Amino acid sequence: MKTEEVAKKLVELCEKKEWMKAVDSLYAKDVVSIEPLSMEGMPTEMHGLDQVRGKTEWWEKNMEVHRANIGGPFVAGNKFVVQFDVDVTDKASKKRSEMSEIGIYTVKDGKVAHEEFLPLAR
Amino acid sequence: MKTEEVAKKLVELCEKKEWMKAVDSLYAKDVVSIEPLSMEGMPTEMHGLDQVRGKTEWWEKNMEVHRANIGGPFVAGNKFVVQFDVDVTDKASKKRSEMSEIGIYTVKDGKVAHEEFLPLAR
Repeated sequence: MKTEEVAKKLVELCEKKEWMKAVDSLYAKDVVSIEPLSMEGMPTEMHGLDQVRGKTEWWEKNMEVHRANIGGPFVAGNKFVVQFDVDVTDKASKKRSEMSEIGIYTVKDGKVAHEEFLPLAR
Repeated sequence: MKTEEVAKKLVELCEKKEWMKAVDSLYAKDVVSIEPLSMEGMPTEMHGLDQVRGKTEWWEKNMEVHRANIGGPFVAGNKFVVQFDVDVTDKASKKRSEMSEIGIYTVKDGKVAHEEFLPLAR
């Protein structure tokens, strides 16, 4: 798949909250994923599908997603950017919060090879 | 300046449509700027303040900006992302259009050292 196809498919799946399906169908085996902050003791830099699936599983198990607005994709060359505005409740703490971040994705051989998340600075 | 300060200052100046002031005050001498498409025969990859000022001058001279909505900044490490939604008229052709793109910026020694623009894929 070309970068724009991968980007549009990822947006489509995230809009349906099918996070794991996005990882399974669009990510490279040796994907690198970079989060700005460590979540629940997970490393900020993850390598490989297993670690990224682990993060996605944690997200699906621990967060109730009330709303997910997905912006983009913005595409050029082998890169694309997607904006995520989510309204979630942490199931354990019952704390509800709105989060806004963007992901910068790099595509190689038709798969997401690198992703990096940047939170909105308020 | 730290990345977040540079990012917020750039957003502030772009909201005021002070494009050249942003370049003059926040950009490194050897900045690299990458556009997805060539505009008016300008190269898609520009090097140094003079070329970037030239592009900004072209923008200010040729475009009437009716509205510029600036989103972000999204910040992590030495990178930030800003979203631009602009409603402009090309003064020569009188063609009015809405454009949406994001810029990915890299900060080095307190200055923008690299910027890259990705248009919204529709």
